[in-house]
Amino acid sequence: MTATTDRSRRHFDMADAIAILSRTPATLDALLRGLPDGWITAHEGADTWSPFDVVGHLIHGERTDWMPRARMILQHGDSRPFDTFDRFAQFEASKGRMLDSLLDELAMLRQQNVRDLAALHLTEADLDRRGHHPALGPATLRQLLATWVAHDLDHVVQISRVLARQYTDEVGPWRAYLRIISGVQG
Amino acid sequence: MTATTDRSRRHFDMADAIAILSRTPATLDALLRGLPDGWITAHEGADTWSPFDVVGHLIHGERTDWMPRARMILQHGDSRPFDTFDRFAQFEASKGRMLDSLLDELAMLRQQNVRDLAALHLTEADLDRRGHHPALGPATLRQLLATWVAHDLDHVVQISRVLARQYTDEVGPWRAYLRIISGVQG
Repeated sequence: MTATTDRSRRHFDMADAIAILSRTPATLDALLRGLPDGWITAHEGADTWSPFDVVGHLIHGERTDWMPRARMILQHGDSRPFDTFDRFAQFEASKGRMLDSLLDELAMLRQQNVRDLAALHLTEADLDRRGHHPALGPATLRQLLATWVAHDLDHVVQISRVLARQYTDEVGPWRAYLRIISGVQG
Repeated sequence: MTATTDRSRRHFDMADAIAILSRTPATLDALLRGLPDGWITAHEGADTWSPFDVVGHLIHGERTDWMPRARMILQHGDSRPFDTFDRFAQFEASKGRMLDSLLDELAMLRQQNVRDLAALHLTEADLDRRGHHPALGPATLRQLLATWVAHDLDHVVQISRVLARQYTDEVGPWRAYLRIISGVQG
């Protein structure tokens, strides 16, 4: 394996994962808290999500997805499929809320979940245990936890992309250099 | 114009732009400071950039790109092309540096640049002034400043994408749901 290959993929490691998971609420807080409303409610047209919607989605994940599924794998293995995750729950749950309050709730829930995760003291054998995803089929606890990390980062990408694309017309000729606007992946 | 269209594009506004520009260093600080080295030096293979490289690139932009070009437009209009921006300067400039020190430098430079930008009290007529980009041709001050904002966000996207893709193999079947890994744009 060359050094280049080493730097383009990582094996799952609990401390590495917790390092990212524990930083996501503060990252979104730094990016979003206090921004003018027009940025917070910006989206990419049609049914796409705004930064406000995404934070609500992350809260719902903390409540119903990641740790509940981890516990289900540890308790029931693949004998019971995970409960289905509601990707649209935030549209009802966030109604009438302020972004600051959602950011506070996300930080609180994540802190508790990371604490609970660390307290499980999972072994490699635990991480190899399998659950059953209702649509995707068999999946290990390690894959679930790696997905939690990547899912956080995917939504940091999404929020930053939504914000950047607000200036699609305003950047003029620089559009050619901005991958996030031109759509070219670098 | 429908409400949907309104939320998918914004006109450039100085207060809006400064709201994003002033948050970028803290966003990157929250995401990156204290992360294990393997995350900081992660990249997407070949000549792609790591989070460490990107922070150095943003520092070089603060020193040589955005405000120097803004001042050139105000002083010389399109009679002098901008100096060429060195996209690879950080590989030399960041050598031997620690990420924490780069994050501190970025925060300091950005704070000064945002202060200088606000102190210019730019009018709409100023924002309409044209400069000359050595490769892209004519570009207004408004376009330059909108690009500064979008460029920040583009690099937040890049860093988050680089980190997420480290777990490309580890997420297993969830790969199908993670746009940042599957490559599908949402």
